[in-house]
Amino acid sequence: MQLVTFQVNEEPLLGVLKKDSVINLKALSSLYNEGEPAKYVQDMLSLIEQRDESLTYVEKLLAYYDQNDTIRTTVEFQLEDVKLLAPISNPGKVVCVGNNYMDHCREQNVEPPEKPLIFSKWPSCIVGPDELVELPEESEQVDYEAELVVIIGKEGKNIKAEEAFDYVFGYTIMNDISARDVQFADGQWVRGKSFDTFAPLGPTIVTKDEIENPQNVKIKLDVNGETLQDSNTEHMIFDIPYILSYLSKGFTFKPGDVVATGTPHGVGVFREPKIFLKSGDICTIEIEHIGTLKNPIK
Amino acid sequence: MQLVTFQVNEEPLLGVLKKDSVINLKALSSLYNEGEPAKYVQDMLSLIEQRDESLTYVEKLLAYYDQNDTIRTTVEFQLEDVKLLAPISNPGKVVCVGNNYMDHCREQNVEPPEKPLIFSKWPSCIVGPDELVELPEESEQVDYEAELVVIIGKEGKNIKAEEAFDYVFGYTIMNDISARDVQFADGQWVRGKSFDTFAPLGPTIVTKDEIENPQNVKIKLDVNGETLQDSNTEHMIFDIPYILSYLSKGFTFKPGDVVATGTPHGVGVFREPKIFLKSGDICTIEIEHIGTLKNPIK
Repeated sequence: MQLVTFQVNEEPLLGVLKKDSVINLKALSSLYNEGEPAKYVQDMLSLIEQRDESLTYVEKLLAYYDQNDTIRTTVEFQLEDVKLLAPISNPGKVVCVGNNYMDHCREQNVEPPEKPLIFSKWPSCIVGPDELVELPEESEQVDYEAELVVIIGKEGKNIKAEEAFDYVFGYTIMNDISARDVQFADGQWVRGKSFDTFAPLGPTIVTKDEIENPQNVKIKLDVNGETLQDSNTEHMIFDIPYILSYLSKGFTFKPGDVVATGTPHGVGVFREPKIFLKSGDICTIEIEHIGTLKNPIK
Repeated sequence: MQLVTFQVNEEPLLGVLKKDSVINLKALSSLYNEGEPAKYVQDMLSLIEQRDESLTYVEKLLAYYDQNDTIRTTVEFQLEDVKLLAPISNPGKVVCVGNNYMDHCREQNVEPPEKPLIFSKWPSCIVGPDELVELPEESEQVDYEAELVVIIGKEGKNIKAEEAFDYVFGYTIMNDISARDVQFADGQWVRGKSFDTFAPLGPTIVTKDEIENPQNVKIKLDVNGETLQDSNTEHMIFDIPYILSYLSKGFTFKPGDVVATGTPHGVGVFREPKIFLKSGDICTIEIEHIGTLKNPIK
């Protein structure tokens, strides 16, 4: 299932993406219940927090939808008529893993880390697909990073690696935009990684059942049509089970938490000559089985 | 006004702290409205998000309470009969300023920073007053840090220093617990600063009108009765208006955001000999005009 947060008028709505259309789950739930919509479909975080019940409920809704041709005009929108927003905008935390691809370590001439290098971005910098990434005045070195994101589905501490996927809700894409000059001058990375609009996220959250092996999916980024990152998640140094197990020794994951699993080789700052984003550029990330996340730069 | 989040049975409730008692704002609002409680008093974040309206409303409630002796038994609890929780547990971000006291820089033999050193803690590590701080297995160097916290009251970007206090809702106390070995080995501080229970917060949020000059309040920490930090916020290198102005050049502050303004000299890791927290210790922070935040270590 591909879940989206979308907008037709003002209110952000939770939806399921079909091929070229989006189904409004709140409206569908109201019809199905003949009254108030279920609490599961209020927004993405509500759905994730009760995922065992809520995904079953959404499947019932979709079966009801399939059997009732007449309701389509009420609950279904053509994709071109909606604005997709970040699928989740208010996670409790955004956890990022640095230097997690062998090829990315080689391009920096650094040894692969002995344990995951962890940093954070503030959730206030999340934006959706097609939204502008704004170049901050303070930086002249704004860079891109294509990343596979794990969305946590269940509260967990001391997660065993072999049970890690029980805690995964699904996957999405993040462009971990980074002001390199600020990041490196500050030493602590969070500010240079958290300027407003620095975390394009989306376009959908793909539930975990749709990706058989998340450690073997293609990940690709281009700027203005030129491919600058082109790799596969099989090159991760620490895989998803290891990351979740390692981190949850110390702290509790909560439903909706965003875990960005690192970027492959090809980022702008380690190129010769360096490439940084400039106004007018278009950044496009494609991850197999998830989709395409495109953002203009200004 | 001193606002608290407290618990009598299961549900966390929003309250106003009087001398030795707590007034349940939800129950008081239901009586006042003769029906459903107002949306302002659902929880601390709801109140802060609508602070202009909500603080006026709470004042009306308190006037109504003062005029109606008979309702006291319904809405008032003795302080000893309630459990105070962290006043806010779900801020969008926890922003921390490092090395922000002259005396703290001197004890480390480092030059005072030219601009604020910014790092983050994940909100999942927030606990309330009297709650246990748990020593993680991974660390043998768990340290304390007394900090004055600013609670943001209004969304803001590019905040001017001279208007900064318009964006402040109030103040509280944080113990910025830090696993020094992990913090320094990781390089990026967030993991060593974010183990579960590493951000005791509270006991109350004091609205900003109660502190005439937040840059001149005493701040003190003791462990088992021995005073280890004893300073005054006048020794901050970057004051609150500067911090809010500096940070909001890059990102948007949102209501409820927690800004920890740094710790004065006396932390354990820079003492000779070093002092680290051990099971059975009691950490107590006192900040003038706010109160006392006490937490046992285990």
